[in-house]
Amino acid sequence: MKNKLYFKSDAKEVQTSAFKAIEKEQESIGYYALPEQDISPVLEYCKTVAQSVETIAVIGIGGSSLGAKAIYEFIKPVKSLKRKLYFLESTDPINISTLLSKFDIKKTHFLVISKSGNTVETFSIYKYIYSLQNDSSAYTFITDPNSPLEAYAKEIDASVLYLPNNVGGRFSVLSTVGLVPLALCGIDIKELLAGAKTIKDSFFKDGYLKDTILKKAVYYAKNHKQYNINCIFAYSETLKYFCEWYVQLWGESLGKFQRHSAFNVGLTPIGLIGPKDQHSFLQLIMEGTRDKSVTFIKIEDFHDNISIPNITLPHLEALDILNNLPFSELINMQCDSVVEALDETGDIPLDTITIKSVTEANIGSLIFYYEVLTSLVGELIDVNTYDQPGVEAGKIILKKKLGA
Amino acid sequence: MKNKLYFKSDAKEVQTSAFKAIEKEQESIGYYALPEQDISPVLEYCKTVAQSVETIAVIGIGGSSLGAKAIYEFIKPVKSLKRKLYFLESTDPINISTLLSKFDIKKTHFLVISKSGNTVETFSIYKYIYSLQNDSSAYTFITDPNSPLEAYAKEIDASVLYLPNNVGGRFSVLSTVGLVPLALCGIDIKELLAGAKTIKDSFFKDGYLKDTILKKAVYYAKNHKQYNINCIFAYSETLKYFCEWYVQLWGESLGKFQRHSAFNVGLTPIGLIGPKDQHSFLQLIMEGTRDKSVTFIKIEDFHDNISIPNITLPHLEALDILNNLPFSELINMQCDSVVEALDETGDIPLDTITIKSVTEANIGSLIFYYEVLTSLVGELIDVNTYDQPGVEAGKIILKKKLGA
Repeated sequence: MKNKLYFKSDAKEVQTSAFKAIEKEQESIGYYALPEQDISPVLEYCKTVAQSVETIAVIGIGGSSLGAKAIYEFIKPVKSLKRKLYFLESTDPINISTLLSKFDIKKTHFLVISKSGNTVETFSIYKYIYSLQNDSSAYTFITDPNSPLEAYAKEIDASVLYLPNNVGGRFSVLSTVGLVPLALCGIDIKELLAGAKTIKDSFFKDGYLKDTILKKAVYYAKNHKQYNINCIFAYSETLKYFCEWYVQLWGESLGKFQRHSAFNVGLTPIGLIGPKDQHSFLQLIMEGTRDKSVTFIKIEDFHDNISIPNITLPHLEALDILNNLPFSELINMQCDSVVEALDETGDIPLDTITIKSVTEANIGSLIFYYEVLTSLVGELIDVNTYDQPGVEAGKIILKKKLGA
Repeated sequence: MKNKLYFKSDAKEVQTSAFKAIEKEQESIGYYALPEQDISPVLEYCKTVAQSVETIAVIGIGGSSLGAKAIYEFIKPVKSLKRKLYFLESTDPINISTLLSKFDIKKTHFLVISKSGNTVETFSIYKYIYSLQNDSSAYTFITDPNSPLEAYAKEIDASVLYLPNNVGGRFSVLSTVGLVPLALCGIDIKELLAGAKTIKDSFFKDGYLKDTILKKAVYYAKNHKQYNINCIFAYSETLKYFCEWYVQLWGESLGKFQRHSAFNVGLTPIGLIGPKDQHSFLQLIMEGTRDKSVTFIKIEDFHDNISIPNITLPHLEALDILNNLPFSELINMQCDSVVEALDETGDIPLDTITIKSVTEANIGSLIFYYEVLTSLVGELIDVNTYDQPGVEAGKIILKKKLGA
């Protein structure tokens, strides 16, 4: 992975203290250790799922689904996978019925993922599915040890796997939460973790990314009042769900009351896909209020050799400049052109991240990069990066309505 | 459609002058007249496409695809349609190959949509498709009269349809651009326009929505420096692509240099889907910086009668409060609970839009509502709502790169 910043960021002493805080955080926050975990229990578990199972369906929401979806949808178009993966995450009845029409419920293994065992969406969907398929061997529950959900799973004699310690939902993709569904589908989870480890080592062991990530985090934090919106502009459709994962990670981690003030702070994430969103959102970045930073993500080699054919269309000869160009070159030229155009404005903070190709290792790297960046910015804007107290109020009101 | 504002907005005289400006704009801006157009030419054209055609594929980007996609994806889950509809809009080679593997190119009619005939994405994809299918009867071109693209289409003896006068891409969904692909798939375009006309009449003929839309527009404009981000939080997966359409409409129309100043202004659109994004973005709205307004969209009746079964799960008896509840009631209770929770903060501008059900008329209404709202806000923040000069710089750089 390469990462080039188009803005200046000094404040060396702030960078140093942020780095120290994050180094220390590793003692209490679990996600930092995930790249080095022993994956043999996951691989052993996978062997217990029958070969006849064609589909894996995750029943889970938010941190229980977004990470696995990001990786699955990234890899799926380029790799022939063992099983299909679906996500049941909405209480929209039309959506539930549509999804269930897409796979054979009798050839599906369901992964029910919930820390607490009281997520309304997850268990309303689970009850519905259970009324259609009550064979408990079709289910695996991923939950906290000693939770009521674990007790339930044991009572019906279903498989249980555990969530790791001190890893919040939105930082859990590289734990059982993501690894189990992905491994069951044939995604190479060893490579995924290896990719994450590259970034971890580069950051913590004085590698080439350390300075860059620190500079970027300090810049975002120091300028968060002006640039309160952070866009990812990814030039590949394969990164669409990675953007959704990023939106949760960034928004839910950084939108908070400050720890040592009564102020609401936050940085708003937006995910864009190029070149499509050049025809949608680019105008706003280019000429709108200067409230956005933009990170472009490029894929160097798409390993798909289709090119624009050498055809001249009468009356449209101007388009001949496209002839013989591989699409992968075109899309990267489009990205470079937009970066140059935005850079010329002089007041939009830009950076580019380049990954080599669509592989498990590279998405693992992207994930860990964004996790560390989020932790750093959270530290620098003085919020608790790992909680989400703001979602409770709505849950309490819903419970009252349900009880009435 | 119902629309309830949870914030106060006065400034009666500003409302009146904005209304007058929009009334006058109807003379020069074409989209206002679309609800009353004669659709018989579209329906006649549709009869010329062979019954054996199974798939319609739009080759177009931005305003040429987002609107039809929004409507198609809204209706598709609830109506058995005549043909499938795909959109070829990215130069991502992996995406092109993946899409082409999903349908039979020999049973597909392609709609190539481009105002000018020089959109890089559209014509690089078109050339590629044309190298696989060079039967010109498989193509219809939708373009401006007397454009080079029209000349090309006539040269190869393909069908040509025209874009209406003075209707920009992002306001064109209710013209041939959207109506043709939708009608070919069996979407009821008469109902679609009738739904749009309801809103048009309600707004222009002193109906119940006039005051509400004006108040909302004036509030957004007056407070655009504080609330520079506008979220749609739609409680149904069917509205996912409506949100993408809205993002283009809002962002590209309102992100501009002001007409009478050197200031960059703009309002940033964000599309969210409930309840999923309660587990992703809600924390940021609830406790983050007070820079967001939120419009909730609810569907009263999903016409899908699935309910949560009356099952008690041992150790999870607390979940029995969900039993027997129709999912459609649950999802709307979830929405109401979040609205209440956010309203209690006192400093987040909220409103709710409720539509009755998933029908062509109702999406037509939503579309026209947002078009008028966009025009009003554009007028009030002093931008040219209908151009997009900011996207040119990148295009010029790309052309240089392509020429080199």
